[in-house]
Amino acid sequence: MTRINENYLKLKAGYLFPEIGRRVKAYSDANADKRIIRLGIGDVTLPLVPSIVNAMVEAAKEMGTPGGFHGYGPEQGYSFLINKIIEHDYTKRGVKISEDEVFVSDGSKCDAGNIQEIFSLDSKIAVVDPVYPVYVDTNVMAGRTGEVNAHGHYENIVYMPATEANNFEPEFPKEKADIIYLCYPNNPTGMVATKERLAEWVAFAHKSGSIILFDSAYESFIQDPTIPKSIYEIEGAKEVAIEFRSFSKTAGFTGTRCAYIVIPKELKGKTSKGEEISFNSLWSRRHTTKFNGVSYVTQKGAEAVFSAQGQKEIGEQISYYMENARLIREGLGASGYKIFGGLNAPYIWLKTPRNLKSWEFFDELLSKAQIVGTPGSGFGPAGEGYFRLSAFGKREDVLSAIERIQKI
Amino acid sequence: MTRINENYLKLKAGYLFPEIGRRVKAYSDANADKRIIRLGIGDVTLPLVPSIVNAMVEAAKEMGTPGGFHGYGPEQGYSFLINKIIEHDYTKRGVKISEDEVFVSDGSKCDAGNIQEIFSLDSKIAVVDPVYPVYVDTNVMAGRTGEVNAHGHYENIVYMPATEANNFEPEFPKEKADIIYLCYPNNPTGMVATKERLAEWVAFAHKSGSIILFDSAYESFIQDPTIPKSIYEIEGAKEVAIEFRSFSKTAGFTGTRCAYIVIPKELKGKTSKGEEISFNSLWSRRHTTKFNGVSYVTQKGAEAVFSAQGQKEIGEQISYYMENARLIREGLGASGYKIFGGLNAPYIWLKTPRNLKSWEFFDELLSKAQIVGTPGSGFGPAGEGYFRLSAFGKREDVLSAIERIQKI
Repeated sequence: MTRINENYLKLKAGYLFPEIGRRVKAYSDANADKRIIRLGIGDVTLPLVPSIVNAMVEAAKEMGTPGGFHGYGPEQGYSFLINKIIEHDYTKRGVKISEDEVFVSDGSKCDAGNIQEIFSLDSKIAVVDPVYPVYVDTNVMAGRTGEVNAHGHYENIVYMPATEANNFEPEFPKEKADIIYLCYPNNPTGMVATKERLAEWVAFAHKSGSIILFDSAYESFIQDPTIPKSIYEIEGAKEVAIEFRSFSKTAGFTGTRCAYIVIPKELKGKTSKGEEISFNSLWSRRHTTKFNGVSYVTQKGAEAVFSAQGQKEIGEQISYYMENARLIREGLGASGYKIFGGLNAPYIWLKTPRNLKSWEFFDELLSKAQIVGTPGSGFGPAGEGYFRLSAFGKREDVLSAIERIQKI
Repeated sequence: MTRINENYLKLKAGYLFPEIGRRVKAYSDANADKRIIRLGIGDVTLPLVPSIVNAMVEAAKEMGTPGGFHGYGPEQGYSFLINKIIEHDYTKRGVKISEDEVFVSDGSKCDAGNIQEIFSLDSKIAVVDPVYPVYVDTNVMAGRTGEVNAHGHYENIVYMPATEANNFEPEFPKEKADIIYLCYPNNPTGMVATKERLAEWVAFAHKSGSIILFDSAYESFIQDPTIPKSIYEIEGAKEVAIEFRSFSKTAGFTGTRCAYIVIPKELKGKTSKGEEISFNSLWSRRHTTKFNGVSYVTQKGAEAVFSAQGQKEIGEQISYYMENARLIREGLGASGYKIFGGLNAPYIWLKTPRNLKSWEFFDELLSKAQIVGTPGSGFGPAGEGYFRLSAFGKREDVLSAIERIQKI
């Protein structure tokens, strides 16, 4: 009988969100009359904006014509989209990125999960605790970790706690780490990194010979103009960092699927013999061998995000969500909850009341107020006693949720 | 400096199709006046049929409405699509498959490349030679192979030659192999496996304790009703096989991206301690952790493939391509070329004239007739001296191509 990849057996329980789905389904099956408000999984709720819909409708129609049909596109993404990305997200912010440094994909979850493949299997990763589980789980699956220890940490991962004590700003890894995952604006804490702090990270990576995997999927929610949107706004970052971006939260693409990563050609790794190899070339090989490009219709939709009208329309959606964040922050703050994040990010990180465990508070909120949030402990042991609320709900749901929570 | 995954350095040159692209570009840059006919990469040329376009247009519009917006869908795919797949592709052919045995993805290239992750790293793979390069390259990247040897084979892969001598019907692996990749109708040879032969494969897998990865991306081109479209039409196949299916060639989705794999719950692997684990559960964990579902708009398009009108429309496209295959077979056959395949598959496999090497014939066809095909040697050493032509061209191009080749 064929042997399985036993690293999968090291994984703790189900992936966080399916587990939430399971509990919510069990509750709603038993309480069909109750209306559940979901502020959990971080899914957007506003429809695609007209510019995007129109572009997708036109593209779908084009696909039905002999002259407009598109078969296999470039695996890396169409130039029409890549050039808009570069112009809008980088050139305008003073960052020079070339076309072959951008790889369009069907989602940041995929990119963040697949990127580890181009690194040596014995490289050591460092993650913030709490953290987006995909960074950790995909390295467990690949075999870069040991088993989970009593503390809830995997052996052979360097954890950098982000706690109230350090204002959720993790310290540099205490042991040598080859690959450092950072996410700003942060999921789940909703905190951001100042330009100074990011510069310290880049300097640290240069000094320690590490690579930073910088997930900026939430950059469009940054309100403070002094906060960098891209790590490449920091001098020297191109030699040490890969950046992840997504249309999911920026433009409501969670069900439409488009994202991209940037791998500057300056970013090098080495072989066991000391030869230097560009990670861009390795990723290009992976991307062309294991991926076949994003749907043409989707890429045309993504392109529309960068039109003047598209920017205006998605800007309004982002303002709507950030107003939700403000309402949650202020509403729950006024009820005595201790609140973090939500100023430059669509996530609010709150301390559970009465020292409840995260899943206890999850069950309480679900059963008493029919609200679904995300247990902080699902993001790592340092998230125990915390809870994530998303600002992606509909306004009326957000208002009801605040009212219901205040009543508990 | 962070260490790279050195397995990538074992990979031979570029992936086949980018290399073809490079040569074609070089030629067309130097000969801008010549019209090139592409029968190489196997991309379809007919536009999406009206049923699919209409479904995608409606879905895109729906995504712009508050009531019709779809955010994150189930990673595994929407039930509306999975149930149609099961009914049409399995139930109607007497095969019982349940909803949680089907996983919708964005392409068979991705599925065929990713599937190896759920197997032990020390499992040994067997492939046909010639073979779709993705099966091999993704295992090289993962570290299951040694270097390429003088014969052009990777060490630690079991190769099963498909040659004129065995009528392109490979023998069972001569050494123990844990995972056997089979593709029927075959890419690149265009040959099919009879029900008897498939039953022998299933029996072999049972006896040897191997798993068959069965790629049936081209099943819709089977004309002979006695040839199985699914390996599950064979008794006992569910305990030994995973099946790959795609909308790419069936419905012109090469630029729209939708495929699926079937992993029956009966299919088990074992741990080093001998514990049995279902591969379905491992893939489910991978799929939910590293993938975020296929675009809603795309899935609605794929659903339309199964409507009565959709079936009629794609049936006409398949007939069109199979008529191309007939024209190529007969046209080149009449000119003295030795031809294989193309009866139940969209690929024609031909012996190069004058004992030319595959790439020599590629360059000759390109420079003398401005026709792009695929060198057989790109699929493995046993493909040397052969050449693949695709039947996916437009009729006028196919007719011109035949005429141009006849003139050489």
